[in-house]
Amino acid sequence: MVVIMRTGATPKDVNRVVERLKAFGLGANVSAGVEKTVIGVIGERKGEAAEALEAMDEVERVVPILAPYKLASRNANPAGTLIEVGGVALGGNRVPVMAGPCAVESPEQMLEAALAVKAAGASILRGGAFKPRTSPYSFQGLEEEGLKILDAVRKETGLPIVTEVMDTRSLELVADYTDILQIGTRNMQNFHLLREVGRTRVPVILKRGMAATIEEWLMSVEYIMSGGNHQVILCERGIRTFETATRNTLDLSAVPVLKELTHLPVIVDPSHGTGKWKLVAPLSKGAVAVGADGLMIEVHPRPEEAVSDGPQSLTPQRFAGLMAELGPVAASVGRSI
Amino acid sequence: MVVIMRTGATPKDVNRVVERLKAFGLGANVSAGVEKTVIGVIGERKGEAAEALEAMDEVERVVPILAPYKLASRNANPAGTLIEVGGVALGGNRVPVMAGPCAVESPEQMLEAALAVKAAGASILRGGAFKPRTSPYSFQGLEEEGLKILDAVRKETGLPIVTEVMDTRSLELVADYTDILQIGTRNMQNFHLLREVGRTRVPVILKRGMAATIEEWLMSVEYIMSGGNHQVILCERGIRTFETATRNTLDLSAVPVLKELTHLPVIVDPSHGTGKWKLVAPLSKGAVAVGADGLMIEVHPRPEEAVSDGPQSLTPQRFAGLMAELGPVAASVGRSI
Amino acid sequence: MVVIMRTGATPKDVNRVVERLKAFGLGANVSAGVEKTVIGVIGERKGEAAEALEAMDEVERVVPILAPYKLASRNANPAGTLIEVGGVALGGNRVPVMAGPCAVESPEQMLEAALAVKAAGASILRGGAFKPRTSPYSFQGLEEEGLKILDAVRKETGLPIVTEVMDTRSLELVADYTDILQIGTRNMQNFHLLREVGRTRVPVILKRGMAATIEEWLMSVEYIMSGGNHQVILCERGIRTFETATRNTLDLSAVPVLKELTHLPVIVDPSHGTGKWKLVAPLSKGAVAVGADGLMIEVHPRPEEAVSDGPQSLTPQRFAGLMAELGPVAASVGRSI
Amino acid sequence: MVVIMRTGATPKDVNRVVERLKAFGLGANVSAGVEKTVIGVIGERKGEAAEALEAMDEVERVVPILAPYKLASRNANPAGTLIEVGGVALGGNRVPVMAGPCAVESPEQMLEAALAVKAAGASILRGGAFKPRTSPYSFQGLEEEGLKILDAVRKETGLPIVTEVMDTRSLELVADYTDILQIGTRNMQNFHLLREVGRTRVPVILKRGMAATIEEWLMSVEYIMSGGNHQVILCERGIRTFETATRNTLDLSAVPVLKELTHLPVIVDPSHGTGKWKLVAPLSKGAVAVGADGLMIEVHPRPEEAVSDGPQSLTPQRFAGLMAELGPVAASVGRSI
Repeated sequence: MVVIMRTGATPKDVNRVVERLKAFGLGANVSAGVEKTVIGVIGERKGEAAEALEAMDEVERVVPILAPYKLASRNANPAGTLIEVGGVALGGNRVPVMAGPCAVESPEQMLEAALAVKAAGASILRGGAFKPRTSPYSFQGLEEEGLKILDAVRKETGLPIVTEVMDTRSLELVADYTDILQIGTRNMQNFHLLREVGRTRVPVILKRGMAATIEEWLMSVEYIMSGGNHQVILCERGIRTFETATRNTLDLSAVPVLKELTHLPVIVDPSHGTGKWKLVAPLSKGAVAVGADGLMIEVHPRPEEAVSDGPQSLTPQRFAGLMAELGPVAASVGRSI
Repeated sequence: MVVIMRTGATPKDVNRVVERLKAFGLGANVSAGVEKTVIGVIGERKGEAAEALEAMDEVERVVPILAPYKLASRNANPAGTLIEVGGVALGGNRVPVMAGPCAVESPEQMLEAALAVKAAGASILRGGAFKPRTSPYSFQGLEEEGLKILDAVRKETGLPIVTEVMDTRSLELVADYTDILQIGTRNMQNFHLLREVGRTRVPVILKRGMAATIEEWLMSVEYIMSGGNHQVILCERGIRTFETATRNTLDLSAVPVLKELTHLPVIVDPSHGTGKWKLVAPLSKGAVAVGADGLMIEVHPRPEEAVSDGPQSLTPQRFAGLMAELGPVAASVGRSI
Repeated sequence: MVVIMRTGATPKDVNRVVERLKAFGLGANVSAGVEKTVIGVIGERKGEAAEALEAMDEVERVVPILAPYKLASRNANPAGTLIEVGGVALGGNRVPVMAGPCAVESPEQMLEAALAVKAAGASILRGGAFKPRTSPYSFQGLEEEGLKILDAVRKETGLPIVTEVMDTRSLELVADYTDILQIGTRNMQNFHLLREVGRTRVPVILKRGMAATIEEWLMSVEYIMSGGNHQVILCERGIRTFETATRNTLDLSAVPVLKELTHLPVIVDPSHGTGKWKLVAPLSKGAVAVGADGLMIEVHPRPEEAVSDGPQSLTPQRFAGLMAELGPVAASVGRSI
Repeated sequence: MVVIMRTGATPKDVNRVVERLKAFGLGANVSAGVEKTVIGVIGERKGEAAEALEAMDEVERVVPILAPYKLASRNANPAGTLIEVGGVALGGNRVPVMAGPCAVESPEQMLEAALAVKAAGASILRGGAFKPRTSPYSFQGLEEEGLKILDAVRKETGLPIVTEVMDTRSLELVADYTDILQIGTRNMQNFHLLREVGRTRVPVILKRGMAATIEEWLMSVEYIMSGGNHQVILCERGIRTFETATRNTLDLSAVPVLKELTHLPVIVDPSHGTGKWKLVAPLSKGAVAVGADGLMIEVHPRPEEAVSDGPQSLTPQRFAGLMAELGPVAASVGRSI
């Protein structure tokens, strides 16, 4: 890191900072400019040191120069990480599509959805048994019953499943049933949950917090990886901005930014990213074109009857049409669906 | 709610929507304009109906007209709610100040901080035993040991305490020790935690999510209240914007907005709201002037040695100076500190 | 529009609003719900009426139901508008690429850039003679001399040119030289400039304001069109969010949203949208895949020597590589570059 | 500034950067860390050098360490600047209030408003003759006729006036009439206008752009000051965020941040900052408590009949009530209204 001293800092002030660095076991390279003095810090970066230094009146600010994540960093695995789930590989040349309804509603609804998305070419089935809902009066999910339905549909169709885990208490239960755990946008910084998911060996999709910077997101990945679970997939699902024409603003630039910063697979959820089914097809194509390693798309047999997210769900017919159109886009960037 | 039909919707389309409303047990008042038809919906608002209607192609959008929260609504208690904790009342004429370090570090540090803030006029002690940290490599709190330290300091000083709970699994433990539970910004939509906190009878401070709208915040309050715990205090702590001169943008307008929408007490945390100790004093005064019912301020005996949030912590001397200045500001708006 | 009355509004209050509507020549369709009364307004929407009604204490809020723009609306030309400039059509099947340096620096630099981008397949040349710079101490552009250089390069290469106009005073001068006027992000709501550009008959690219909603952007288009100039091209160039990994957040969802709302061509500028040359290629592909009608890309013979925007400029070699890759992407969505 | 090299940069790479710095007349202090090399740059900071260096592949990023504004910097006049207009001083102990309608509508309306705000204690009259309106179909202001009305009302009441200038072409006209020029939020980066206003000697209020960082705002001040006009007043008027309960989010923390960074007076506009008259009183008090040097408040004799901004305008009675309440708040922070 680099310490920038306040204008007017005296040599004595600089010395005090250098002594403080020494106490943290860090070296200092002082560069006295005409107006300000800058101190290059030598040694391993420590968050604690940075905050302690910023609390000193002599210091204007501290500029970190190393990424605060290590296991998630591209350097940790320059070739890129491949995550395999039930025969489906994420992070390779193929761009798998995960599809299904927002919520598990009934065995019939899930089976109908699963058969339809499988027929159209999806390779992983999504469906929520625990539902994070803004209102306590909205449907909260079928919980364990929903997990059992997912399990039955998996057996029937052969599709691996991904479903959301919402808190530490239900983690074991969900992990017992699912092929991939999903951590939702509102839990991206639920650190206890991240820590416990890190102790499982179940692959996990970590959605971006709706106001999270890319660096914070990678730090949440680091929570999981530092527990020993290295099978993390990042999912861009839109961030919150002032724009109201879409439910969120899907940040497709996050995909190539992440591909440079981390070795992990990056997928995109255009359903939550836009909130409108009409926008799902163009943004899916855009996601594949910018280099996404997978897509997660909401599909419901009858969106008008969905208990949640109907407005952003594709019908099976529309989904099949989209899948047919995605192939050429993937091919145009050297990949396949 | 009001349903706005798409331009070009036919009488048959309108009829289909009216039938759908009937299926939800709702009446319809159709108003055919020159360019668009609008349907006023009669009956209790149901979130499910709104989403289902928005999923219909004939419908452009659905405009809710009633607030989606009920227990939290000002109408539920127009006179305003007073919450009493250890002899301190929140929501009344007095504006209590909660102060203390970000994290519990040691018995000595907590006692020193507690005696200092009490001497300066604070009436509630804050301190974190479980710490939500962006990095898995940062200090995560003393956990149960920290709770025991808080308990001992409470006995020594008589100050009631407020401390953070981070997940469902540790709720019972934290609730056993603390006078007020705190739910942090990253957990504002940790719905399972909200639900379980709603089943306790411990007063709770719910901080605003850094990207949460005021309506979403009140819906999270509703989660807690619908469980039976009506002792909820809202805490504005800054939202995330593009501005980088401050850690967050403290939204002081949220205070009078909330005082109109809800009957619950509203407090302000200028320490997290700004991230810089120099800004804590002016923003504390601003918070009192706009009508806050309390303040939460970080104070550390030696900010340079704090394990977290040193840059935004006041020294005891600065805190005492601020407390002296706050009295006249409170008096100027008819209140007292 | 729809008027939502305050809770507790009396029939007398409702009547007062109905009378006020009559004074504006508008009819009313009153729908008394259980908790709130809603008034459907019949007649042409008038902004003045909406604001006047919102200023009434009896009124909670006014919900507009018609788009406030008319000439820009998709309904005004459902087939879509084709804008032709120097033999290049925007809004059709082909996706033309505009390329060149941020600023005109010298005749040699412009000619070198122009020949390079033309050889790679660009069909329009960009270059700024008037430069909006954040600092008054930065290079402000060659002004008229820059326009003359652009003119000479156009003659030499046959490429039509696009260049920015910054204020009303220099509009006539710029319009005399350029094939397409560009209005930058900071001037999107410079209403006097919009009005005067509306009186010319020169095609204009209107960049999105960095904090502008899509509706506000279309209202700025309406300013130009209502003056009689119907040749407007919208350019998405990134919006401002909390994310700092990119200079702006490129909102690719704006492209399909606009294609539904307006009949005008929509192009994308991934150079300003990301601020980093490495991100220009993937985001260019994403833009074409979501349906953009054109691209605007910064190319400089030697980015390290550029007087502005070097970090986001492609070298001619990188640009040529990108152009070769864009063809298949365009083909995959049924278009050509 | 500090140059941070990419991980893996070789001594040859470092040398190339040092040579490039030399070419700009700058010295270099190389600090080789374990993982990254950092170069402290010695000599005057040049924006051009920073951009050129960032365009080099060897360079990861460039961190500026000096503020890019000089004339606006607090260092340029540590004691603070007092701006006097018609006997009213801004930047001193007193906190003057500017009040009046959004738009000049008629001689009667302006005179009525002026007499009312004067009686209540306002010392400067506001009113727009040129109105920046989102829609081309909305009232655009009385233009020169409006300026004449303002002039007449000034003579009648003795109140100095502030009115908005929207473009370079009308600057001379507006400057001839007004005591204080106002530059609105949408023109904060209308650089040609800033430059020309800098050549006048008329005091100017520069409103913050709704998506402008504080640093960008100060750079716009620098544009005006570098032309020789040092009488600049900054006006916080709310920024754009995701929150929809208020028209903008009034950033009161900007006031103390600016008071540290610049020597110029800082005022607050709670009318535009909130968009709702009910919020104007509490936010006005908050603004005074955080240290604002003045207030700008919209007052209309009959808000329901206002041609613009009725919903956020106070009636004369409410304004008089607010003025009475502001005195004690100002006194509580050692100032007067």
